[in-house]
Amino acid sequence: MQDKTGTALPAEALPAALSAAAEAIEQALDVLLPRAEGAEARLYEAMRYGAMGGGKRMRGFLVLEGARQFTVSRSAALRVAAAIEMVHAYSLVHDDLPAMDDDDLRRGKPTCHRAFDEATAILAGDALLTHAFTVLAGEDTHPDPAVRCELIRCLSLAAGPRGMVGGQMLDMLAEAAEPGAATEASVGRLQLLKTGKLIEFSAEAGAILGKAPISQRHALAAYGRELGAAFQIADDLLDATATAGETGKRTGKDAEAGKATLVGLLGLERARIQAEALVEQAKLHLEGFGERAGLLCALAAYTIERRH
Amino acid sequence: MQDKTGTALPAEALPAALSAAAEAIEQALDVLLPRAEGAEARLYEAMRYGAMGGGKRMRGFLVLEGARQFTVSRSAALRVAAAIEMVHAYSLVHDDLPAMDDDDLRRGKPTCHRAFDEATAILAGDALLTHAFTVLAGEDTHPDPAVRCELIRCLSLAAGPRGMVGGQMLDMLAEAAEPGAATEASVGRLQLLKTGKLIEFSAEAGAILGKAPISQRHALAAYGRELGAAFQIADDLLDATATAGETGKRTGKDAEAGKATLVGLLGLERARIQAEALVEQAKLHLEGFGERAGLLCALAAYTIERRH
Repeated sequence: MQDKTGTALPAEALPAALSAAAEAIEQALDVLLPRAEGAEARLYEAMRYGAMGGGKRMRGFLVLEGARQFTVSRSAALRVAAAIEMVHAYSLVHDDLPAMDDDDLRRGKPTCHRAFDEATAILAGDALLTHAFTVLAGEDTHPDPAVRCELIRCLSLAAGPRGMVGGQMLDMLAEAAEPGAATEASVGRLQLLKTGKLIEFSAEAGAILGKAPISQRHALAAYGRELGAAFQIADDLLDATATAGETGKRTGKDAEAGKATLVGLLGLERARIQAEALVEQAKLHLEGFGERAGLLCALAAYTIERRH
Repeated sequence: MQDKTGTALPAEALPAALSAAAEAIEQALDVLLPRAEGAEARLYEAMRYGAMGGGKRMRGFLVLEGARQFTVSRSAALRVAAAIEMVHAYSLVHDDLPAMDDDDLRRGKPTCHRAFDEATAILAGDALLTHAFTVLAGEDTHPDPAVRCELIRCLSLAAGPRGMVGGQMLDMLAEAAEPGAATEASVGRLQLLKTGKLIEFSAEAGAILGKAPISQRHALAAYGRELGAAFQIADDLLDATATAGETGKRTGKDAEAGKATLVGLLGLERARIQAEALVEQAKLHLEGFGERAGLLCALAAYTIERRH
């Protein structure tokens, strides 16, 4: 099916666009991450192991598509996409550690501390986080230092104690809490911090790079916020219903860990309805961008349809 | 003893200057670190526990004294000093973890993972590192975003895979290596990365804040490099000769862990001579700054005289 201009409709074009973005981001990571050399090669190998060779690259895709709404060089957008994927990868490497979620499998491969060792995994996570800021601070990211600084400020807020790390702390505390202590509000806040803030920033980053008017920047951020919330419910639905073969990681582990999720609190059906409502809201925020935002619209819908 | 202008000589003024700087940095950390509130309060408590209430604040002192060579606002210098101390604190929290050096005692207190738990300590370290970049990216650090961006770029390089984290990886690998594998060159490189780069940046940061001519920035960086090397030898000498009561941490652990140090490779006497030579070189780099750099000169000498 084709639209009037003869190009594929966004929903049909999405899988190829996602694959192309993932490949471009993989190449950017390959260039930006240190090569394995010197006595500390093991660290660089572990960084590459944790950051490359897998993942949907949804956050990076959001950066690239957000940037496409404005006049942003492809190479700049790819640097920012790669930096955000480094931060996402660091969070996974640390979350998988024995003292945290104690996972052996990630993206169908042994987790970083299983493939290397615990100390190396801790350091590789630390190094990925730190290196992301080196990449953003570099002149190649944007000629205007005010833009680079704003990207760094927003990324550090999204990933820091009032964002991703704060959310992971809440997650640890929730696992140790009495069964039944969680509410829809507390789980919603946990997920907003743990995964929502970084997805929101990913959607917003292109507008920062493009020096967009504040209204457009806010619209993309709001899109990212709704998308992130829908994505988290979809992830919990997958954990509850899919198999490890489909997702490349251990499933059913939320229930096993007694972890409260919106799916557990609302039930499968109401959680699905809520995710659909979030997707519709996400799309509304894109209205001002017209056809150029077609892939972002399609991504929102895809988020709750995917099986992996 | 007083010099011609009636002020105390630098060497005599140093202890009071170090205390005053440490107190000012402690206050800055108190303001800049998140207050313990909300469900994730445990994370903020652990961040404060790891970063506050101890330490010589040598890195922060270097920032403040470096900044005093130029026209830099006190509040800006304090923000940068606090950010660097957050990064230093994060590295200690992670280095002390069971999977790393497995230490129970730090600055005379239980280490962060002993006072809280391992997951909280990992997250508190992650949060301190990330929050340091939020602080540096903030407008209050400097009105010129190019200055903020340069500080961030240099800090992330000093702390990242080609700096502090790389050095910690080398340290982990050295412990697992065959006895006798270490050379003066390999140990020197390990220490340059693990502690030297951050001390070098601390000395240089004031020049970046002050938009100093590149020659003065390089001079302060070179001072920091020699100082850092001397400091590390002094630290190893203390570990070999002092008691836990004097240092507030477990001593004799290098020998116990079979860890190669310059002290072990050169012997106490030659190591002491090398540290003294480094201190003399450090002072030479300060010649162009005149009397205003007196405390930096005195710090270099103090580094190898201290007993804690």
